[in-house]
Amino acid sequence: MPKLYIGNKNYSSWSLRPWVLMRQAGIPFEEVVARFDSFDPDSQFKATLAGVSPTGKVPVLVDGDLTVWDTLAIAEYLAEQYPDKYLWPQEAKARAVARSACAEMHSGFAALRGACPMNIEADLAQAGALLWRDRPAVRADVARLVQLWSELLERHGGPMLMGKFTIVDAFYAPVCMRLSRYGLPVPAHIAAYIQRVEALPAMQEWIAAAKAEQDFREFEEPYRLKR
Amino acid sequence: MPKLYIGNKNYSSWSLRPWVLMRQAGIPFEEVVARFDSFDPDSQFKATLAGVSPTGKVPVLVDGDLTVWDTLAIAEYLAEQYPDKYLWPQEAKARAVARSACAEMHSGFAALRGACPMNIEADLAQAGALLWRDRPAVRADVARLVQLWSELLERHGGPMLMGKFTIVDAFYAPVCMRLSRYGLPVPAHIAAYIQRVEALPAMQEWIAAAKAEQDFREFEEPYRLKR
Repeated sequence: MPKLYIGNKNYSSWSLRPWVLMRQAGIPFEEVVARFDSFDPDSQFKATLAGVSPTGKVPVLVDGDLTVWDTLAIAEYLAEQYPDKYLWPQEAKARAVARSACAEMHSGFAALRGACPMNIEADLAQAGALLWRDRPAVRADVARLVQLWSELLERHGGPMLMGKFTIVDAFYAPVCMRLSRYGLPVPAHIAAYIQRVEALPAMQEWIAAAKAEQDFREFEEPYRLKR
Repeated sequence: MPKLYIGNKNYSSWSLRPWVLMRQAGIPFEEVVARFDSFDPDSQFKATLAGVSPTGKVPVLVDGDLTVWDTLAIAEYLAEQYPDKYLWPQEAKARAVARSACAEMHSGFAALRGACPMNIEADLAQAGALLWRDRPAVRADVARLVQLWSELLERHGGPMLMGKFTIVDAFYAPVCMRLSRYGLPVPAHIAAYIQRVEALPAMQEWIAAAKAEQDFREFEEPYRLKR
């Protein structure tokens, strides 16, 4: 069975993507959690990943003698290994759009990601309101999300971005958590999509585990002094 | 025939990737160059991309009524459309490694990319020497490149990273240009790989066109006052 190495469920947005993809699609895997202590070379986190992750980062999927060390590459590998799960849309053009959307997330939305680190257990509405007031780049990132999601939901009719649950929803699941926890304003049909993502059984399981962690890592907490 | 929208050949590292992939693989396309004037909303660049690129960025591939708006998604689309070109390795595990390497480039090497913008016509050896002396994060990015490329070249026997030319070489081609133009120190076997990439017919064509542009854009020129 493949092993998926992940970080803290409360904090690690990159870890959430392949985890929720595999769990929601019913792909069996063994979970190895490397909780963040620090990212220093002598940290427990780096020690857990030594010899596993060539970049020293999570997530990593280890399947026998194969190591897949990036979220998007993990998704592509799983789509090939489990064709019956239809992790990508079946139609070639829809698949190209889905991959564009995932790749845009993979390298983009820097302002939102920098200003609003994922923190599932926290209510960061006040921080979010200040960011919304003061950071045009955050507002621009949210505007692009609203545009993209609106187009996809309208084109495919929902409930998920490409119709049924695919890699695209897994890729945007951490952003759903950010928009929700920071209370950033979005139109009603976008808020409804965020709620549908949060209600997915795999997301419910992840969120419950995130809340149970009860770690507090200052380098992930620009807006709180304590839990 | 698909249209590939790109930016300046001298400056646009993201544009280089799909262009050299298609040209080197012999995939026909029509090139549309949107040379950078500025990235302001009222720029000629943005005007050219209006109604074409949903993000206002290059590259974009337009194939009939389909728009593919990210480099990695373009590569995946082409790999599906032209299976006889073997743009990815044929073996599933090698393909997963290749995708990991491309995805690492897609979201990573921020220090190198930030400090050393691609500038094919320029000799930036002095700037490179100062960056090498003063920026540990740049040295760390280059060390990771050397580690990754060394492993792949040894495993597959060269001359390209996965043996034959694939998407991986196209993805790292801009980094080859940076390492060369900034004169960053690398071991001999890595310098030899960079020379092999630069010698590819498609790269030679791109480089000649980059040198012929003779634009000077201050926002791409942190190290020169003029050409």
